[in-house]
Amino acid sequence: MSHLTQLQQWIADQGVDVAYISDPTDINYFTGFYSEPEERVLALFVFPDAAPFLFAPALSVEAAKKAGWTGDVFGYMDQEDPFTAIAARIKERSQNNRTWAIEKDVLPFGRYEAVRKFFPDAVFTADASRYMEQAKLIKSADEIALMVAAGKEADECFRVGFNALRTGITEQGVAAEIDYAMMQQGVMHMSFDTIVQAGINAADPHGEPSAAQVAPNELVLFDLGTNHQGYMSDASRTVAYGEPTAKQKEIFDVCLEAQLAAMDAVKPGLLASELDKIARDIIAQAGYGEYFIHRLGHGIGTSTHEFPSIMAGNDMPLQEGMCFSIEPGIYIPGVAGVRIEDCVHVTATGSEPFTHTDKALRVIPVRD
Amino acid sequence: MSHLTQLQQWIADQGVDVAYISDPTDINYFTGFYSEPEERVLALFVFPDAAPFLFAPALSVEAAKKAGWTGDVFGYMDQEDPFTAIAARIKERSQNNRTWAIEKDVLPFGRYEAVRKFFPDAVFTADASRYMEQAKLIKSADEIALMVAAGKEADECFRVGFNALRTGITEQGVAAEIDYAMMQQGVMHMSFDTIVQAGINAADPHGEPSAAQVAPNELVLFDLGTNHQGYMSDASRTVAYGEPTAKQKEIFDVCLEAQLAAMDAVKPGLLASELDKIARDIIAQAGYGEYFIHRLGHGIGTSTHEFPSIMAGNDMPLQEGMCFSIEPGIYIPGVAGVRIEDCVHVTATGSEPFTHTDKALRVIPVRD
Repeated sequence: MSHLTQLQQWIADQGVDVAYISDPTDINYFTGFYSEPEERVLALFVFPDAAPFLFAPALSVEAAKKAGWTGDVFGYMDQEDPFTAIAARIKERSQNNRTWAIEKDVLPFGRYEAVRKFFPDAVFTADASRYMEQAKLIKSADEIALMVAAGKEADECFRVGFNALRTGITEQGVAAEIDYAMMQQGVMHMSFDTIVQAGINAADPHGEPSAAQVAPNELVLFDLGTNHQGYMSDASRTVAYGEPTAKQKEIFDVCLEAQLAAMDAVKPGLLASELDKIARDIIAQAGYGEYFIHRLGHGIGTSTHEFPSIMAGNDMPLQEGMCFSIEPGIYIPGVAGVRIEDCVHVTATGSEPFTHTDKALRVIPVRD
Repeated sequence: MSHLTQLQQWIADQGVDVAYISDPTDINYFTGFYSEPEERVLALFVFPDAAPFLFAPALSVEAAKKAGWTGDVFGYMDQEDPFTAIAARIKERSQNNRTWAIEKDVLPFGRYEAVRKFFPDAVFTADASRYMEQAKLIKSADEIALMVAAGKEADECFRVGFNALRTGITEQGVAAEIDYAMMQQGVMHMSFDTIVQAGINAADPHGEPSAAQVAPNELVLFDLGTNHQGYMSDASRTVAYGEPTAKQKEIFDVCLEAQLAAMDAVKPGLLASELDKIARDIIAQAGYGEYFIHRLGHGIGTSTHEFPSIMAGNDMPLQEGMCFSIEPGIYIPGVAGVRIEDCVHVTATGSEPFTHTDKALRVIPVRD
């Protein structure tokens, strides 16, 4: 059953008259057409008993057809009001348009108001964001094969990045070497902006590469991934540039122990919250609990952050085919930061990582 | 008067009790702290008579302080419900919390519902997206200086890109050369993914670089820009790789004539719609009107697409200090695509472009 047929089934079950899909990744999931419309309106409308249609900026209509979408696609020009056109098309399709499903995580309030203007009796009870989470939760063998390929590319990124380290190169310079090498190898997109952080900069767990230069006896944190035919990789390694200090080595060892313990524990039936706790307890018992300030992991697939969230409070049992990151981190402001991350898929008896770059502390000799 | 003080003034004038700012660029505009929180919650809450506060993921709290935000910043952990914490903080700050301003263009419906859960009597009458459009519409001399610097970087991108053209290089390979060179020169971010499209691929006005190879006697379209300390450049050039055909030359000439006529016409008092019409009429009279399927231009500043929109129906008079693109395009499916674009700022008597790369048809000799 196609993704679209499954969605139609769901909306019929929910008593939904109109589903308004707006997230570009979700539109791609149903149509095979990916486009980031920025402030313009790109939308897929799906009905229980009528044919779905795409509504797109005029400048994307040809691309949608070329991508293989064989349903209707209606374009609008920049100076037209998109919701006037959308409302007319919907009323042509279906006289029942009271109950709507929208993606509540992403649809801007202003677009909800625009729909309300044309459908004042509409109710927005069904949350298509929750549907998408469930629909994408278990990956097929084909999807996992694409994620394996993306993981191989991430391993290649690490190889390039480790080779690029030298005294005086900037964090951004290392990231540039990685991105350039991957584009030369035909990778079309990184899955997010490549992160390289050296020394105390790595203590910012949500930071980005800066013009700071790599210096001897620092830890250098890499967090990166590629987009392989719409499926993402995401992995982190922390390496020592020159001999690490005892403190650097200690926090690395604790983080690695936590990461390996969690990797080892994954199996169907374990709760996401239990998995988080396995890693967190190791870091807390070593005295670094206050420096591990994010969840253990996040789901991954057609986006880098999706379901399931591996954290306290999420008592969802792991199932075969789920894909998520295992990424404990220890971030000590002014001292150092360490994060070690693989994404895995759950198998019948355990898990398999998508990335295989060695995780033992790698000491890269100082070089100019 | 600081940006924040101006916002407080506006919310007082509007009778707003709480303004919830959620767009990362807007938060940066008020706080000096930029972070893309992805699915996490990053928010600035502003009140008419109480101190504003930032609410951020725990892993971004240190970075917010380091960026120079001296007001309160409250963090939350991944397993906590952010809106429970937000509601408590707001109630501490202010007993008046009935009338809210939100950015209707960006705030997801689900977050509006989360606010409603804790403030069931709240009304969301004020649209902070409209406030931001107006607040950012006229650029200061300091802002224009940053955009001049960003424009210089875009000119350098063209130089690198034109030099990279050779038979057999992929569109993506050319884009990779541009990005790599800019990162080596210390540019931290491109303003959007660099676009290089060769031959018929350029007929997709919203396309991206592919693995297609550059071949002789094709037009090659570049659309690119950099982010210079938070201010963006955006420019397009179309060049001939090898001798152009008569048809390629014809559509190039029409597009250039339209672009130059619009550049020449810009001055305070002209309506945005009139400016669009000047370029559109030239293209239409040459018989290519149906192939110019987007507005003439968009505002630019801290984002690549902002106010004012240069299009039919927008009867806003241009004013000194406005910054926007002038980018006519002709896209003929299966034949070719041409777009020529500069961003300009309106001066007292006309306009000044941010980019200066020559616009006459450049014929790049075929090389291996």
